[in-house]
Amino acid sequence: MIDVSGKRVPVIATEEHYVIPEFVDASLSAARRAPNDLDGEDLAFFLGHPLGRPWLDPLSDLGEGRLRVMDEAGIDLAVLSLMSPGVQMQEGANALALARHVNDHLADTVRRHPTRFAGLAVFPPQDPAAAAKEVERAIRQLGLCGLVVNSHTHGEYLDDPKFWPIFEATEALDAPIYIHPRNPPNELRRYMSNSRGEKALAGGVWGFQFETSLHAVRLIVSGVFDRFPKLKIVLGHMGEGLPFWLYRLDDMYERGYRRHGKGAAKRLPSEYFADNFVITISGVHDHPLCHPTLSYCCSVIGTERVLFAADHPFSSAKAAAESLRTAPLAHEDIAKIAHENAERVFHLPSVAMQHAAPRDRAREEQAHT
Amino acid sequence: MIDVSGKRVPVIATEEHYVIPEFVDASLSAARRAPNDLDGEDLAFFLGHPLGRPWLDPLSDLGEGRLRVMDEAGIDLAVLSLMSPGVQMQEGANALALARHVNDHLADTVRRHPTRFAGLAVFPPQDPAAAAKEVERAIRQLGLCGLVVNSHTHGEYLDDPKFWPIFEATEALDAPIYIHPRNPPNELRRYMSNSRGEKALAGGVWGFQFETSLHAVRLIVSGVFDRFPKLKIVLGHMGEGLPFWLYRLDDMYERGYRRHGKGAAKRLPSEYFADNFVITISGVHDHPLCHPTLSYCCSVIGTERVLFAADHPFSSAKAAAESLRTAPLAHEDIAKIAHENAERVFHLPSVAMQHAAPRDRAREEQAHT
Repeated sequence: MIDVSGKRVPVIATEEHYVIPEFVDASLSAARRAPNDLDGEDLAFFLGHPLGRPWLDPLSDLGEGRLRVMDEAGIDLAVLSLMSPGVQMQEGANALALARHVNDHLADTVRRHPTRFAGLAVFPPQDPAAAAKEVERAIRQLGLCGLVVNSHTHGEYLDDPKFWPIFEATEALDAPIYIHPRNPPNELRRYMSNSRGEKALAGGVWGFQFETSLHAVRLIVSGVFDRFPKLKIVLGHMGEGLPFWLYRLDDMYERGYRRHGKGAAKRLPSEYFADNFVITISGVHDHPLCHPTLSYCCSVIGTERVLFAADHPFSSAKAAAESLRTAPLAHEDIAKIAHENAERVFHLPSVAMQHAAPRDRAREEQAHT
Repeated sequence: MIDVSGKRVPVIATEEHYVIPEFVDASLSAARRAPNDLDGEDLAFFLGHPLGRPWLDPLSDLGEGRLRVMDEAGIDLAVLSLMSPGVQMQEGANALALARHVNDHLADTVRRHPTRFAGLAVFPPQDPAAAAKEVERAIRQLGLCGLVVNSHTHGEYLDDPKFWPIFEATEALDAPIYIHPRNPPNELRRYMSNSRGEKALAGGVWGFQFETSLHAVRLIVSGVFDRFPKLKIVLGHMGEGLPFWLYRLDDMYERGYRRHGKGAAKRLPSEYFADNFVITISGVHDHPLCHPTLSYCCSVIGTERVLFAADHPFSSAKAAAESLRTAPLAHEDIAKIAHENAERVFHLPSVAMQHAAPRDRAREEQAHT
C-alpha cells in the first residue's frame, strides 16, 4: 500500500519480469544460433554475461528477495510475466514445450504466494492452434490471469489471420493480452543502427517503442477488433506512444481510407483504442516529464484505462510507486491506476478486501511450501 | 490575423505545400521508374490521377487562390515548402538541377508577394557538397528563410557524417531545417503493409511518423548536435511524437549508454531537443484530442518552441487557425505559437509591424507582376 495524502492505497504492479533456468538455457541457445539478432545480443548480456548479474539475480528471484522489493515499494500484488522475448525466439516444438513448462512453473509460484503474485501466461504464436489450446489451459486450469506476447514472432505480426485462433481463445476467456516490446525483426537492423553499424537505436531507447507501436497500429487498422470486439490488449510504457497519435490516426484513417470505402477496420482507431486497449505506466517514472505524460494520457483516454506497473527489475519499483503516489491526480484516480483498473482488467480479487481480512504471511507461506 | 478573446493576433503558417510543373513532371517520371515505391504511388495519385485534382489544384496555386485560403483562415504569412518527397526521389544530377530550378522559382514567388510568402529551399542530399553550396545560395542570394528535407534519401539518413557538409552550411547560416515526413524506404514495405499486402500503414496513418521520428532520434543519439551545437531542426505534426518519448529516451540513453561510457551523443536526448529542435502543429487540429496534445507539448517543451502550421492543402487552413484561436492557452502563448516563434526561428520580419504600416495588397501585387 502507498500513502496518498494520508489514505492507504493498495498497489498492483502489472508488468513485473522474471526468468526460470529453463528459459535462461533456451534463450542463450537461441542467442548462440542467431549471434547477430538484436534480441539475442540483449539476452546474451542479461542472462549470460557477468555484467548482467544485477538483472539476472532479481529476475530469478520468485521468493523473499522479490517480496522484499515489493514491500519496500508498497506493492501488494505483482502480475508476473516471463522476460521478453519469452518463447518467441524458439523454433518448432521447443516453443510449445517451453511455454507449457513456464506456465506450469508460474502457476506454482502463484500458488505459493496467492496474495502477492498473479501471472500472465506465455504461448507460442509459432503454432497458433497449439497456442490457443495452451491459452485455454493456462487460464482455465492453471488460473493465470492473462497472457503476454512480446510483439513479433520471427518477423510476423498478430494482425495476420493465421494467428486469430489465439484471439478467439483469449476473447472467449475474457483474458487480456499484454503486448510487451522486443526489438524489431533483424531485417530492420540497419534502421536500428547508426552509420558506423552500432545498434544505437535498439532496445528501450527507440527500438522497443518503434516495434510495439507498429504492432498495435497493425491490429487497429486490420479489422481484428471488428472480428473480436471484446478482445483486450494491454500496452506498457504509457501505451507505447499511441495516446499521442490517436488524433492523427483517426484523421488520416478517415480521410485516407474510410471516406473512400477502403481500409479493413470499420471504426476509427480511437474507438478501438477506447474499447479494446488499456495502458500501463511501466518504465515511466523518475523523470520530470513523467507526471505531465501521465496526466496527458489520463485526459486523453480516461483514468479507467491506465494501470500501474513498475517494470521490475529494469526500472526501480520504489521510484515507480513514488511517482504514482505523488502524481498530480485526484485520490480516486490514483486508486484506479494503483489497483482498481488492474482488478477489473485481470479479474483479480480485490486487494483492499484482502487487506481488510486478518493476514499472516509467514503462516500462509508455510501452508504452501 | 485571428481574433483571440478580442485581440488581433497575426498568424504565420510554417508548413504550407506547393508544386510547380517541373516538379510534377520529374516526380511522375520517378514514380513510373519505381512503380512499387510507397511514395511513388502517392505521387502518382496526387499529381497524376483525376481523383488527385482536389490536392493538385491548390498545390499548384501560388497566387490569388492560395491568398484567398490564407485570408479566410486569417493567415498573414505562409512559409512555403515543395511537396514531399521534394527532389529526393531523383537520381544523379537531376536532383541538383531540379533543386536549383525550384529554389529560383520559389524566390521569385516570394518576391511577388513579399508580405504574404516566405520559402524553405530544397537541396539534394544525394550530393552533399553540391547540396551545401545550394543551401548557401538559397539563403544568401535568394533570401529564402530555411530548408526543407523529406526524411531519408534513397534509404539513407542525415546522421551519416557524409551528409554533414549540409549541416555545416545550415549552422553557419543559422538556417533551420524542416524535416518533413515521407514514407519509409521501400525495404520496409512489408512493415507498412497488412497481411494481404495492402499498404495499410503507409502515409499519414503511421508510416510518416514512424519514418520521421526515427530520423530525428538517429540525429539525437548520433552526436550530430555535439558537432553542430547551433543546428536547428523543425519537426511537424507536434514533433512527430518525440515530446511524448523524451523521458524514456533520456532514461534509456542514460542507463543503456552513457553510464557505460557508450553512445556517441554526449548529452541527454531531452537536452538536444530543448536546444536544437522546435515543433509545429501541422496537421494537428479539428479533432477533440488536439487541444490536450497542444497543451501537453507546451508544458513539456515550452511554448517558445511550438509553431503554427496548417499543412495546406492536406489539412484545412481554416480549421488549423480555428484550433489555435480556441486553444486553452494564455493569450501571450497563443501569440508566440501564432507568429513570434516563427519570426525568431526563420528570421522573418515582424508580421505585426507590417500590419501597423499602411498596406495595399492590390497595389503591391501590381508592382510585382
